[in-house]
Amino acid sequence: MKDFVYFAPTEVVFGRKSEEKVAALVKKYGGHKVLVHYGGGSAKRSGLLDKVLGLLKEGGIETVLLGGVVPNPRLSLVREGIEICRKEGVDFILSVGGGSVIDSAKAIAYGVVYEGDVWDLYIGKGECYKCLPMGCILTIPAAGSEMSSGTVITNEDGNLKRDYGNEYCRQKFAIMNPERTFTLPPYQTAAGVTDMMMHTMERYFSQDDDMTLTDEIAEALLRTMKDEVFKVLKDPSDYRARAQIMWGGALAHNDVTGCGTSSDWATHQLEHELSGMFDVTHGAGLAAIWPSWARYVYKDNVSRFVRFAVNVMGVPNDFTDPEGTALRGIAAMEQFFHAIGMPISLEEIVGRPVTDEEIDRMAYLCSNGGTATQGRFKVLKQEDMAAIYRMAR
Amino acid sequence: MKDFVYFAPTEVVFGRKSEEKVAALVKKYGGHKVLVHYGGGSAKRSGLLDKVLGLLKEGGIETVLLGGVVPNPRLSLVREGIEICRKEGVDFILSVGGGSVIDSAKAIAYGVVYEGDVWDLYIGKGECYKCLPMGCILTIPAAGSEMSSGTVITNEDGNLKRDYGNEYCRQKFAIMNPERTFTLPPYQTAAGVTDMMMHTMERYFSQDDDMTLTDEIAEALLRTMKDEVFKVLKDPSDYRARAQIMWGGALAHNDVTGCGTSSDWATHQLEHELSGMFDVTHGAGLAAIWPSWARYVYKDNVSRFVRFAVNVMGVPNDFTDPEGTALRGIAAMEQFFHAIGMPISLEEIVGRPVTDEEIDRMAYLCSNGGTATQGRFKVLKQEDMAAIYRMAR
Repeated sequence: MKDFVYFAPTEVVFGRKSEEKVAALVKKYGGHKVLVHYGGGSAKRSGLLDKVLGLLKEGGIETVLLGGVVPNPRLSLVREGIEICRKEGVDFILSVGGGSVIDSAKAIAYGVVYEGDVWDLYIGKGECYKCLPMGCILTIPAAGSEMSSGTVITNEDGNLKRDYGNEYCRQKFAIMNPERTFTLPPYQTAAGVTDMMMHTMERYFSQDDDMTLTDEIAEALLRTMKDEVFKVLKDPSDYRARAQIMWGGALAHNDVTGCGTSSDWATHQLEHELSGMFDVTHGAGLAAIWPSWARYVYKDNVSRFVRFAVNVMGVPNDFTDPEGTALRGIAAMEQFFHAIGMPISLEEIVGRPVTDEEIDRMAYLCSNGGTATQGRFKVLKQEDMAAIYRMAR
Repeated sequence: MKDFVYFAPTEVVFGRKSEEKVAALVKKYGGHKVLVHYGGGSAKRSGLLDKVLGLLKEGGIETVLLGGVVPNPRLSLVREGIEICRKEGVDFILSVGGGSVIDSAKAIAYGVVYEGDVWDLYIGKGECYKCLPMGCILTIPAAGSEMSSGTVITNEDGNLKRDYGNEYCRQKFAIMNPERTFTLPPYQTAAGVTDMMMHTMERYFSQDDDMTLTDEIAEALLRTMKDEVFKVLKDPSDYRARAQIMWGGALAHNDVTGCGTSSDWATHQLEHELSGMFDVTHGAGLAAIWPSWARYVYKDNVSRFVRFAVNVMGVPNDFTDPEGTALRGIAAMEQFFHAIGMPISLEEIVGRPVTDEEIDRMAYLCSNGGTATQGRFKVLKQEDMAAIYRMAR
């Protein structure tokens, strides 16, 4: 069992009409002039953005707007946000949207106070131990960025998707109203659930399989997400089911499902190269890669995969055949991904066969030119990464 | 499903030798002159107190000492602490001990900044929205005060045990080293586990039985505590099992096991009168009362007690007899309490039969002279309280 730090200081305000508390929360956390950051049209179309701007104005809070965040959020918009904040004297950033918007906001929040180039943080050339305070109104449960300590940004120059983070970028508050997710299309809903399940599975697949309580909590979360997603796909306005998923997405990535374990994160790293190169939906990319990762690594700790098969996927435990049980658990997860409309191969997600050159390029980038490994469950070198991409082809 | 706020901002530093980070943590949260608050002799005998004082001194942090906290911590010591902090210009309180020490520290932290009499807060005559910052080194996992927003104090004048709390009294940091709990005697260990299980059961027994994720997490925690306690009773130095219990105690009362439900808390309120009057161990008092509370209220939501019986206690679900399944779950919990050395009647815990007059007095106090109800699963009036005390006799 590993020592750990658990620090999830975000104030979560969860429920119907919770966005109405936005002005009070911004003030509580010291905001006077706020950058309101958002994505494409949905925040506008739904009327949420106008409602929020009205509430902030009523609360005597000045606002500056920056929209246009796209999935796999871009460095160029981050740079624009940094400039705006500095010029306008912004002292708080409010995100209205999903993980991409919050990730972009985190990058801006670091960049405003960091003296060097913000991209340096993402490529290991710098560290930053402060940032502007932030809050968010979550509309897409998926990335868990609303409680996490991480941010992922894509540099269009080279299609590099890289992550950075520490405790300072945790949101001061996260407003979560499940009703705001009723209009989320099935594909985004399913990709979101995949992402949140993977956040917990990256922590769950650990060689430290002696933190019982954490494992039990992780399994509880995985089972709930697995069951509830079918309910929202059937009835997108099922408040109760949407609420389980929204809250699950936050808990899946606030560290409570990983206390005392050593997380893996190889699937995430492999996926970052995929969505960096092909700009695919992150959750879908994870579904396309995980089964191949699992089949490549399961022999390094069969009993953990057996536990997953039995406790999460409901596979009968064949005590005479642990490997068979483990493999049936992986196959069941693959079937689950397919059943909710997720791809389970690179071809399915990219829309054409992925070439050897592309695979080699992704493995090269993911291993930082052969100098870095990924994962802890099984430590992956460049050739392992290429082998997994090929299995997933 | 209820709307909720989840806010558990305490930085938990968990693991072997974690107390060595104390000076850095006090500084991180702005402490310069610290009241070190502790209980009886165990913090001294174990050498922990001296170690901590040495580390703080090395870190250039001034200290003032106040020991002597007893279980069911007293108002008189709180008043003494307030006076010391004001006189000495203390700007941070560090607790070294268990829930009683932390609860006492919270009362002091409020009292130092509150202009009126601190007891007013506990009897509903005042509110306080700030307090001195605090941190703790936990040595007794039980009360969950290390992450909770509450404090319970006993006023010796009338033996009144009352609670108060809001987000401001949450600890800035909580240092948890499971090794520091190896010397905890079996009775304290078992009473601690009872207390933490009850913190989750108070949340779990709710009429809002539609927050699946929260229920699954609560059940995961209850099952883990129930199993791990036997391991530590058998081998008090089992680090892994001690760690499950220590972390479980914090999660049991940081609200994650109650998000979206409406908690009950009647058993706690009934127990407060018991330990106020007889000065018994809080966890043991809860064990003595819960089975009677459960049998008195279960008909108000049989299906919730069936779920508890099956998912937590492992009772086979007899679908033809839900009430029987529910009652077998309650009986199994009662057996569990007995198996870990807890009392399951008032006579067992007080050491003699409790008189009618004493029961009527407790019901009178618990209902604030017949003016207040307790509980939400079933709303209890004064006569219900007396009936439950009698069943538990």
